[in-house]
Amino acid sequence: MNKITIGLIGYGVVGSGVVKLLNKRKKYIRDKFQTECHIRTLCDRSIDKKDTSILENCKLTNDYREIINDPDINVVLELIGGLQPARQIVEESLKKGKHVVTANKELIANCGKELFQLAKTQGRHLYFESSVGAGMPIIQMLTEGLAGNTFYKLYGIINGTCNFILTEMSKKNLTFAQALEEAQRRGYAESNPTLDISGMDSAHKLAILVYLAFGKFIKVNEIYTEGISHISHDDIEHAESLNLTIKLLAIAKRENDELEAHVHPTLISKDHPLASINGVYNGVYLTANPLGDLLLSGEGAGQMTAASGVLSDLLNLASRGHDANLHSNLYSEAADLKIRKIDQSRTRFYLRFMAIDKPGVLSKLTGVLGKHDIGINSVTQKAHNRAAAVPVVMLTDYTTEKNLRMALNDIQRWPIIKSKPVAIRMETLA
Amino acid sequence: MNKITIGLIGYGVVGSGVVKLLNKRKKYIRDKFQTECHIRTLCDRSIDKKDTSILENCKLTNDYREIINDPDINVVLELIGGLQPARQIVEESLKKGKHVVTANKELIANCGKELFQLAKTQGRHLYFESSVGAGMPIIQMLTEGLAGNTFYKLYGIINGTCNFILTEMSKKNLTFAQALEEAQRRGYAESNPTLDISGMDSAHKLAILVYLAFGKFIKVNEIYTEGISHISHDDIEHAESLNLTIKLLAIAKRENDELEAHVHPTLISKDHPLASINGVYNGVYLTANPLGDLLLSGEGAGQMTAASGVLSDLLNLASRGHDANLHSNLYSEAADLKIRKIDQSRTRFYLRFMAIDKPGVLSKLTGVLGKHDIGINSVTQKAHNRAAAVPVVMLTDYTTEKNLRMALNDIQRWPIIKSKPVAIRMETLA
Repeated sequence: MNKITIGLIGYGVVGSGVVKLLNKRKKYIRDKFQTECHIRTLCDRSIDKKDTSILENCKLTNDYREIINDPDINVVLELIGGLQPARQIVEESLKKGKHVVTANKELIANCGKELFQLAKTQGRHLYFESSVGAGMPIIQMLTEGLAGNTFYKLYGIINGTCNFILTEMSKKNLTFAQALEEAQRRGYAESNPTLDISGMDSAHKLAILVYLAFGKFIKVNEIYTEGISHISHDDIEHAESLNLTIKLLAIAKRENDELEAHVHPTLISKDHPLASINGVYNGVYLTANPLGDLLLSGEGAGQMTAASGVLSDLLNLASRGHDANLHSNLYSEAADLKIRKIDQSRTRFYLRFMAIDKPGVLSKLTGVLGKHDIGINSVTQKAHNRAAAVPVVMLTDYTTEKNLRMALNDIQRWPIIKSKPVAIRMETLA
Repeated sequence: MNKITIGLIGYGVVGSGVVKLLNKRKKYIRDKFQTECHIRTLCDRSIDKKDTSILENCKLTNDYREIINDPDINVVLELIGGLQPARQIVEESLKKGKHVVTANKELIANCGKELFQLAKTQGRHLYFESSVGAGMPIIQMLTEGLAGNTFYKLYGIINGTCNFILTEMSKKNLTFAQALEEAQRRGYAESNPTLDISGMDSAHKLAILVYLAFGKFIKVNEIYTEGISHISHDDIEHAESLNLTIKLLAIAKRENDELEAHVHPTLISKDHPLASINGVYNGVYLTANPLGDLLLSGEGAGQMTAASGVLSDLLNLASRGHDANLHSNLYSEAADLKIRKIDQSRTRFYLRFMAIDKPGVLSKLTGVLGKHDIGINSVTQKAHNRAAAVPVVMLTDYTTEKNLRMALNDIQRWPIIKSKPVAIRMETLA
């Protein structure tokens, strides 16, 4: 029988979920995994205000040092989130010879490289399955399940809040504001939803995935990030009629010695499996060699799904031997990879102009785009109305971001263009 | 640096793929996984006829005992397939203290329980990622990635040949015979395709997945299995018009202390992610607690995808410690689970009758179904033709297989029914 003696730091949503799950699965874990998990000490800043009645034989404290300095504790669960004191807790725990399990995406995205190195030096495990996609085992898949593969492309729907909002807008004809309100009502979005809808949450997770898939540590602010608040229902409808759907995608691509990584709303074919990942579900689509294309999808948020990832980390950690060399692949960096800036990225675009309905508008638009070397694959003008501006929708051929920006800068100053042009990137995933 | 000294038995499609991959990734594996893999001995029945020029410092033999009795070999790759001598090779290797990696679904499906037990007694690893879904890491996901979850439902598209045939029939309007021919032409189907199209290959893989997900060892012949050769293009078209698509699904469901496991063509909603798993791709859709629904999909067949799974097994094995307790969850059986027979299984059905177009036919059909307690959700009669039989398509409510069989037995004896009624099960996966 393996025995894990746990110090749990952070008794919020995920922490209390882990306690519930460990309690519920006690016998199952003992029978099936020959493992006993005992939470010896629980630390929370506001421990006095928490209901801890579910815990048995557990010391309560608001000082995490009681956990770090306890020689009987061999695994520390860091579930407080944020950079500090989480970083200090993880570092000190590893230095004291403890294994660490964390669900902290901000910490791993920003300090992963140093922390993995420290864990290696200390000969201890650092697990972080729930930092991306909650319990959906994308971290283990990248570090172990696909070991020996090299990766070319990664497309992730890795923010459940944004995916829920876009799904509601598209299936229920809601505006962005209405869909956001619905997400908040259901508890899928915070009262201040900025981190999610700005794409920043996805950027943190993408930084982690990029490190695992491509061996390149990339700073979160090196990832070009665009949120979903400017997506209008009109664009979703135009997209539908073109057999496309809009998803907030975290994208990383390797081409020779260049890597690009960005987060932005993206049009993809409705026939692609990622297009069916709806609501709060997450999905990661990978192109690997020799394995080819791979999709993993599951619920990406929620108390118990995050707790599921933490529990699998605990059980896997317990089953590894004392001289295990797990995650050895985390410690080598592909130093030769350069980051390609967004303005050099080549992609196709969906463009929507609100233009005065006059003869010659289309030729003027296509003319300027052509001048900037941007080919057009299709043009649709949905309505005619001599009095008001009408939408002109174009799909471009591959072009650089830079050329597109220059063209749009020209166009938006014309008096016949009545609002800021909309440009949404398109990806062909198959 | 870890060192793995390998004895490779079986130099067919997968075996030679593994050698190619190890060769190509030598430096990558050394740098990233601090592991050196050396094939010390290669054994093949027809070793004289094989091109082994790619191998360096490798003994060649046609006697696998040279591998089993070599104390310097610590990992045996069994890649010959079939039950014997594969079983003997795996058993003897484990007894001699070697770890084993195999891609042999027939072996694991039939002898998994005994072999896992033997591996445990010997303190050695037995890995088998490529036995299901080639390199798509479904085995690791079930044994480790989702550790601590309990499972309720499993739906798998786990035979690439059948999925290719059904996709071709549906997308290119081919008959079954034409689609099979195309599969053979492309090398996706054997010249004798029986094992695939009868569903037997899927049944073997399902037996493995059931053991991992539900802890119940189930014999392949306890799995009700129906192939795809009776699926007609008409049914695919009727399905399309009902927003449904036909997939060969391997299904396992747990309800209280009963488990059902079957393989058969199944109608699912076109909106479900499994419906977009096309061509030779495999996909497994799971319902787990607390994780919820999860989908893993990837290429399920092919030399290099299978080799990818074998390589990840090798690298994971190398990174585990000597006292690792991996796959401890393989050794405990859920003895309390009973197998529910197919005739007690409750499902909805798509029915197609070819009936003489006379007044009263519909009422006669629904009457007999009602007598057998089978409710009807929809009826469509596509054409009217007083001279010939016309298709009458019905979707039933939930009913037992047994009631349906009795009703169809009655109906098919009527003179107005011109061919054997078609019954295809429907599943609501969401």
